[in-house]
Amino acid sequence: MTGADPRAGREPDAATPQQRIGLRLAYDGTAYSGWQSQPHARTVQGMVAAAIATIDPAADALRGSSRTDAGVHALDQVAAFTSRRIMDPAVWQRAINANLPKDIVVLKAWEAAASFDPVEAAIRKRYRYRLYDNPVRPVFGRMQVWRQPSPLDVAAMRQAAGALVGEHDFTSFETASSQRRTKVRTIYDLTVERADATEHPGAEIHVEVEGNGFLYNMVRIIVGSLAMIGAGRRPVEWMTEALAARHRPAAGPTAPAHGLILLSIHLDDASVE
Amino acid sequence: MTGADPRAGREPDAATPQQRIGLRLAYDGTAYSGWQSQPHARTVQGMVAAAIATIDPAADALRGSSRTDAGVHALDQVAAFTSRRIMDPAVWQRAINANLPKDIVVLKAWEAAASFDPVEAAIRKRYRYRLYDNPVRPVFGRMQVWRQPSPLDVAAMRQAAGALVGEHDFTSFETASSQRRTKVRTIYDLTVERADATEHPGAEIHVEVEGNGFLYNMVRIIVGSLAMIGAGRRPVEWMTEALAARHRPAAGPTAPAHGLILLSIHLDDASVE
Repeated sequence: MTGADPRAGREPDAATPQQRIGLRLAYDGTAYSGWQSQPHARTVQGMVAAAIATIDPAADALRGSSRTDAGVHALDQVAAFTSRRIMDPAVWQRAINANLPKDIVVLKAWEAAASFDPVEAAIRKRYRYRLYDNPVRPVFGRMQVWRQPSPLDVAAMRQAAGALVGEHDFTSFETASSQRRTKVRTIYDLTVERADATEHPGAEIHVEVEGNGFLYNMVRIIVGSLAMIGAGRRPVEWMTEALAARHRPAAGPTAPAHGLILLSIHLDDASVE
Repeated sequence: MTGADPRAGREPDAATPQQRIGLRLAYDGTAYSGWQSQPHARTVQGMVAAAIATIDPAADALRGSSRTDAGVHALDQVAAFTSRRIMDPAVWQRAINANLPKDIVVLKAWEAAASFDPVEAAIRKRYRYRLYDNPVRPVFGRMQVWRQPSPLDVAAMRQAAGALVGEHDFTSFETASSQRRTKVRTIYDLTVERADATEHPGAEIHVEVEGNGFLYNMVRIIVGSLAMIGAGRRPVEWMTEALAARHRPAAGPTAPAHGLILLSIHLDDASVE
């Protein structure tokens, strides 16, 4: 019984024990320049890393599954870090939360495999986009909805959305400057529903999209295109043409960041907490 | 056919035409010292009256159906004023909205009878109170929910709520200093439901109460009492005893204002817009 110790790769040196901690986080993105740390900017990653550093200054860099843009919210971002300080995950959760501002919270912490990479492990992501189309402006949650100048045709939007489901080259739905090699992604689900949002009953339309990954600004360009169809400015068939064109100008505008929320991240079986 | 002109009371003098305008309003009460105008305080009534005065400096005092407290919100407050300036109600709505801050909005304006009194005409009011009982703190809508230290027993709260439905003397559920003559009110409906709130799925409990009128702080004391039962600090039967006691200390604490929202006001047939 001299087989390899399954923890061998995890603790290269008995003198320096390490613990890999996975986190699920929620945040209101209004006050932040996005997830990704940047010099001279207030970012979500920066705030969470600073909270961790208060507890363990030797912890390695925090990594997140999704680089949400400035103003984008999350109900379920996944992140991970490696610590030199060994603590129960529930203690980590409380300790980090005690050092975070009110608009960021750790929903859950768990002990992950040493190899856990939040980017690689995220095999499916789901986003929600909130559109508000009542003629009277909203007074609640103004920084969570994109207000429309006139009511949208939900049935037309839903019909157009069907063209995007499946595996496609989404070049038309990516900010043009991107250098990513493959533009092929799979959308598993794309729903458009009139929603009974708590404070705006019937006044919101929620677009939810789930896929194996998204190009830069892809969800926001999909929503910007759907809004043009909902407003009657483009026919339903235009979405099929926009997709086939593989050319950014063929699609609609990029919807504003503040209507977008990262809803859930599905991890691969090896990484499930 | 020299009978009384039904408009006679409305226009006492042909040289000074008047128009009575009814308003339905929504507001986020977070930044206000309540509805009622007060010297040296920022109030919702004060803001709306100032917006009207910009358009017609001779308009009479604005009157509202409900004196919501500091921090209380409204999805549907009713108010009315009499103007010397005759305009289409839709024009009034747009003009007032153009002069209001982002957290107050006129949902609707209509031409009301000269005798329309928003207090007298309000024959039924409905409120919602939002409780949040997830162990992890909320990051969205923090100023619209009352956070609980532990999960609440909704079934027990619902059972206890049943004791309050109907016509009762609600002395136990009124702030003690009140001088109102009769303490008898009728609750038509009182529901307690685990809610799928947009950003806190399953983490909120909504208490909704509809009645012909409410004593001072009555909804908040009902909610404070229900929360004690939900937390297991009092048995279900305690609510019946608290009601029967007709004595403020027999009931629970007053729930904080910010979880409360005025949901709708039902006007009598003569006043319906």
